This record gives sequence, structure tokens and C-alpha cells, in this order.
Amino acid sequence: MPADAPAPVFISPDAMREHWQGHRRLTRRVIDAFPEDQLFAFSIGAMRTFGELAREMLGMAVPTIEGLISDEWAAYVEAQATTREELLRQWDLATETIDARWPSIPAPHFQDVVTAFGQWTMPAHALVLYLVDNEVHHRGQGYVYLRALGIEPPPFYARN
Amino acid sequence: MPADAPAPVFISPDAMREHWQGHRRLTRRVIDAFPEDQLFAFSIGAMRTFGELAREMLGMAVPTIEGLISDEWAAYVEAQATTREELLRQWDLATETIDARWPSIPAPHFQDVVTAFGQWTMPAHALVLYLVDNEVHHRGQGYVYLRALGIEPPPFYARN
Repeated sequence: MPADAPAPVFISPDAMREHWQGHRRLTRRVIDAFPEDQLFAFSIGAMRTFGELAREMLGMAVPTIEGLISDEWAAYVEAQATTREELLRQWDLATETIDARWPSIPAPHFQDVVTAFGQWTMPAHALVLYLVDNEVHHRGQGYVYLRALGIEPPPFYARN
Repeated sequence: MPADAPAPVFISPDAMREHWQGHRRLTRRVIDAFPEDQLFAFSIGAMRTFGELAREMLGMAVPTIEGLISDEWAAYVEAQATTREELLRQWDLATETIDARWPSIPAPHFQDVVTAFGQWTMPAHALVLYLVDNEVHHRGQGYVYLRALGIEPPPFYARN
């Protein structure tokens, strides 16, 4: 590549935000598909409940964006919610905040190495991908929980 | 953004390849963690076995890269493997092929809309992310299968 060629792009920051929000719309449907009495109760193999997994996702999402904007990182704190309604309310609030705050992350910062929450050191793009991957990973577990409960999960490809 | 400013980069094509290969190293460990007699037998809630899910991942990975290079797409075909050893052998072969062939995808092509396998229409970057997300999603299911079998899965963050 010549020295003055533009840096190659796999995906832009804005398309990545939209990709993540597509996943978050699907995860919201999975939360909503759990019966209220199973969301914080049902699990397999001594794993966490889907409600607990969703609280982890919430605890990481907006604080990561704020950390990438400010370069100031508090310790990680799991979100607080003990009902499906409260979880969905916080989920929707995070959706709005992600859209509003993401553009304030300076684009070149995605290539910088950061130490998130005082403990995870990696390039900022890898950190954001870790959040998305962690959500997809745990949501895949949620699909098994739903199937084991006899409930058809939403289609994996539905991101609208 | 001024008209002559470089396009913002969330992640470059080469970093994306390495990110995917990190996931593929973890998925390989998950395949290897299954007892031979459970890989194509155990499931929960009438879902597919992890062996079948891994065959799907294999059937999509290299053919997607070849399609992105040539713009010619055959129909999707699930990989053939009925033993853990054969699955791992094909997995390692795909690992080498991905590294060898990925650089032949022209970088601007990741922003083009493609119709993969004659049926899935989306930007090329979304297609590659779909492959990775699909792998993470199904691997998350594999984690539940392993836990239900009383087997500790490899750590999610281990990608080396």
C-alpha cells in the first residue's frame, strides 16, 4: 500500500454502532420472550440465569462508551434489575444513550489501546467487539434456555 | 467531515481477520472439549448437536471468502464430517485457507452489497460479521451443552 493511500476500512464506526444496535434489538426480544417467573430463575448446568446475563450486558454497554469518550474508567458494576419490565426499561434507555453518545468517541480512538474498567487492556475496537461478542455468546445460551422451556426463540437473523 | 477527510475506520480488514481467527481458535477448543460420543449426539430442546453446528460454520467460512474474491457464489453446502478428528482436520485446513485467501478480497469490496450463496443480500462487511456472530451464537449453545454434560468449557476470553 502506498504511504498516502487511505487506511483500509472493514467497517466504519457508525456502521458498527448500527450492527450492535441490531444485535441489541434481538437481545431485547429474547429478554421479552422469557416468562417473568423464569427470567431470573431458570438455568442449565449451574450457569447464570438469562436475567443475570442481561444485567451484565447492561453494566458494560453505556459505561464502556463513556469510558471511551472520557478516558476515565470506574470499576465495572452489574446493572440492577429484578423484573423483566425494569430490565427492558433500562435496555431501552441504554439504546437511546448508545445512539446519542457513540458519535462523541473520536474515530481514531478505536485504534488506541485502552484499559477498560481499570482491568481489560486491548485496542478500543477489540473492546467494543468483546461487548458485542459477549452479548451474542450469552444470548446463544438464552436460546438454549428458551428451547429447554419449550419456547421458540426469535429468529437469529432478525435485527430490525 | 470534510470531503477530503479519510473514511473513518472502526476496524481494518486485517484486524477483522485476526479477530475472527481468535474466535475460531476458541471454537476449535470447544469442539475438542466434547467427548467423541457426544459431539454428534448430545443436544437440548431438540436443537442441533454441536458437531452439526460446527459443520455449518465450516460450510460457510471458506466459501464466503472465495465468493467475496470471485463474485461467484455456489449454493451453500454443509461440511461433511462425522468424527471429531475429521472435523478438527477440516477446521485447521480452513484456518490456513482463511489466512491465505483473505488478503485477496479487495478492501473496498467490504462496503459493497453482495448476494451470498445466491440468497443473502447485505454489505460484505455485514456478511462476514454474520459468519462470526453465527459462530459465537452457536458456540454459546455449545457452552451450555458442555455444562449440561458436566464439562468445564474453555474461558470465553481465551483467543490465543
